[in-house]
Amino acid sequence: MHAPASELPVIAADILARVRGQNPRVHCITNAVAQTITANVLLAAGAVPSMTLAVDEVGQFVRGASALLVNLGTFDAERRAATVVAIDAAAEHGHPWVLDPVFINRSEPRAAYARELVTRMPKAIRLNRAEYTALAGTAADESAIASYARGRNTIIGLTGATDLVADGARLAAIANGHPLMTKVTALGCAESALVATCLAVERDAWQATAAALLIMGIAGETAAERARGPGSFAVEILDALHALDRGTLMAQARVS
Amino acid sequence: MHAPASELPVIAADILARVRGQNPRVHCITNAVAQTITANVLLAAGAVPSMTLAVDEVGQFVRGASALLVNLGTFDAERRAATVVAIDAAAEHGHPWVLDPVFINRSEPRAAYARELVTRMPKAIRLNRAEYTALAGTAADESAIASYARGRNTIIGLTGATDLVADGARLAAIANGHPLMTKVTALGCAESALVATCLAVERDAWQATAAALLIMGIAGETAAERARGPGSFAVEILDALHALDRGTLMAQARVS
Amino acid sequence: MHAPASELPVIAADILARVRGQNPRVHCITNAVAQTITANVLLAAGAVPSMTLAVDEVGQFVRGASALLVNLGTFDAERRAATVVAIDAAAEHGHPWVLDPVFINRSEPRAAYARELVTRMPKAIRLNRAEYTALAGTAADESAIASYARGRNTIIGLTGATDLVADGARLAAIANGHPLMTKVTALGCAESALVATCLAVERDAWQATAAALLIMGIAGETAAERARGPGSFAVEILDALHALDRGTLMAQARVS
Repeated sequence: MHAPASELPVIAADILARVRGQNPRVHCITNAVAQTITANVLLAAGAVPSMTLAVDEVGQFVRGASALLVNLGTFDAERRAATVVAIDAAAEHGHPWVLDPVFINRSEPRAAYARELVTRMPKAIRLNRAEYTALAGTAADESAIASYARGRNTIIGLTGATDLVADGARLAAIANGHPLMTKVTALGCAESALVATCLAVERDAWQATAAALLIMGIAGETAAERARGPGSFAVEILDALHALDRGTLMAQARVS
Repeated sequence: MHAPASELPVIAADILARVRGQNPRVHCITNAVAQTITANVLLAAGAVPSMTLAVDEVGQFVRGASALLVNLGTFDAERRAATVVAIDAAAEHGHPWVLDPVFINRSEPRAAYARELVTRMPKAIRLNRAEYTALAGTAADESAIASYARGRNTIIGLTGATDLVADGARLAAIANGHPLMTKVTALGCAESALVATCLAVERDAWQATAAALLIMGIAGETAAERARGPGSFAVEILDALHALDRGTLMAQARVS
Repeated sequence: MHAPASELPVIAADILARVRGQNPRVHCITNAVAQTITANVLLAAGAVPSMTLAVDEVGQFVRGASALLVNLGTFDAERRAATVVAIDAAAEHGHPWVLDPVFINRSEPRAAYARELVTRMPKAIRLNRAEYTALAGTAADESAIASYARGRNTIIGLTGATDLVADGARLAAIANGHPLMTKVTALGCAESALVATCLAVERDAWQATAAALLIMGIAGETAAERARGPGSFAVEILDALHALDRGTLMAQARVS
C-alpha cells in the first residue's frame, strides 16, 4: 500500500535517521559552482560525498557508492565522459541515480542531452518549471508531470514556491522553503544531491524524493529565521540541516 | 554633460536600484576559485549569474545575457576557447564585457593574452597596480591610466587602498573598502563581475564601473564592523550587499 | 639537536609568526572542491595562495612561490600534467612540496600514481589511516609510519582523532582538533596546504608539519566553542586561525 502525502513528515524523519545511521556515500557529478555547497549539504545531512570526474576512476567510485547524482550545470567534455561511465556503473550495480537538468531551458544542446539521459532510467529528476518545460515540451501542471513520470517510470521533483513530487500515481505538494534559498548559488543543485542521498537509504523513490525536498525546505525556514541576508543564510541552512530533529520536521511540514 | 565624481553616490544608488529591479543575467567566465563567491555576490546584488564554459553553448548563454565577465584567473585551454566564443557573441549582440586580468604580473603568456583581449574592446578593465603595470608597461599613476583608457576607449578600474576609475576624461578616487577584503579569496574577481552587472543596466561605463567599486567598498566597510575575522567577513559582505540602501551609500561614500 | 615534542607549541607559535611576517606564496594543485577553502585558510594564516593548473604557466608560478602542494582529490588529465611540471619546477628551485594523496584507498590508479609521486621526494605527506594503508601496504601504527618516513626521507603527517607526525627519528602525537572538522568538506585538504605553508618558512620538515597540524587543531577547537553546526564551524575556523595567538597555542596544545 502506498503511503499518502500526510505520512510524509514521519517518513522523512525516518529517512533522515537512516542517513545519519548509515552515512551512505553519494557520488556527485556536478558543476563547479555547486561542488563545495553540495559536499557540505551532504556532510551536514550525514552522508559522505565523493566528486571525482576522471573517467578512469569514476566507475570505481560509483560502484562503491550507494547513489549517484548527475547534474548538468557545467556541460563540459570531461563531465559528459564521466557521466556515461558513471551511469553505466550505477546501472550495473543497481544503484539509484538522480538527474538534475540545470538550465536546459537556456541551451538546446543541453536539453537534447538531458532527454537522452532520461532514457537511462534515473530514479528521480529534480528541476524547476522552466527546465521541466524544456525537457517535456509541455507546461508543468500537475497532470502533465504525473503523466511524464508514469511514462518514464521515474519521479518528477518539481521545485518552486510549492514543490510537487509525482510518480504517476501519487502526488505530494510541499509548501515549505524560503525565498532566500534562491539567493544562494547552487542550493537547488545541492537539494538534488540530497534526493540521491535519500534514495540511497529508501527504495520507494517517491518517498525519498519528497523527503529530501521536505527536509531541505524546513531547514531553509529555520535558517531564514536566524539569517540577516543570503550570506548568513548559506551558513545557517547547513547548521539547521545538521540539527534538524523529528519534532521540527513534524511541526513545520506543510504537505498535502 | 558628464556627471562629476561628487554625483557618484547618487548614481551608484540609482544603478543598484536598477539591478534589483531588472535582475540582469551576467555571464561569467571566471576561475575555479572565484566561481562560487562571484555567483553569490551577483545574487546578493540582485543579478542572475551564469557560468558555463562549454564552447558549444557559451555563445547561446552570452547572447541571452546582458553583460559578460572574462577573468583570466585560471588560464586553461577550456576557458581560453570559451573566451573567444563569448567575446564574439557579446560583440555581435552589443553586450558590454569586462576584463579582469588576474595575476598577469606573474605569468608572461597570460599578460600577452590579456593585451590581445584588450583589442577586443572591453568596456572596462578591473585590475590592481601590479596587474596594470604588467598590462600597460608603465607605473599606475593617474595620468598614465587616463591615457591608457583614452587610447583603448575603455575604463580602467584600478583597485587598491584607494580605487581609481578613469575613462580618459574623468577620474574618480574612491576611498571606501577595508583590508579584510584582501583576506577573502576572489573578492576582487567578484567585484569585477559586479562591474559587469552595473554595465548591464548603465551605458555610461565610467559611471557603472565607479558605482560597482563604490558599492563593494561600502558593503565591505559594513561587513568589517560586524566581522571577527575573514571567515565571518565573507558572510557579512554578502548580507551587507543584499541590504545596502541609498542612505548608507550616501552617508558612507568617500569619493573625490 | 632535535627539538622534542614538548617544544612544539613554542615552535608552532614561532612558525606562525614567520608566516604572518613573510606572507609566503604557496602554489596549490588541488581538487575543485577544496580550492576555495584552501585559499581562504592560507589567507587567514597569513600566506598567499596561487592555484593555476595551466601547464604553460604553472612552472613560472611554482618558481616564484615558496612551497608547493599536490593534492590528488580530483585526478584529471589537466591536474596530472600540471603536477609533473610543478614538481619539476619545485625540485629545480629547491622549494619544498607536500603530497596529499586524497582517497587513494578508493581508487587503485590513484594509489599507483601516489606511490610514483613519493619517489619525487615530497618533504611531507599528509593523509589519514586508510590512505596510509593504501600507500604503504601496511597498517598505520607508529613504528610502521616511522619506518616508511625514514625509508623515503620524508615526513608522515597522519591525521585522525590523534594526529601523528613521524620523520623516522622523531614522533609527535597531537590530540587537538574537533569532530566537526570532518563535517566540512576539504578541511583536511586545506590542512595539507597549511603544512606546505609552514614548510615555506621552516626547513625542519618535522617541525613544520607538526606545527601546521597543531595550529589547525587548536583553531578547530576554538571554532567549535562558537559554532552551532558545520556551517558556522567553517566560518569560525577561519576567524580562529586569523586570530590565533601564542597564548592560546601554548595553553591549548596537547602534544606528546
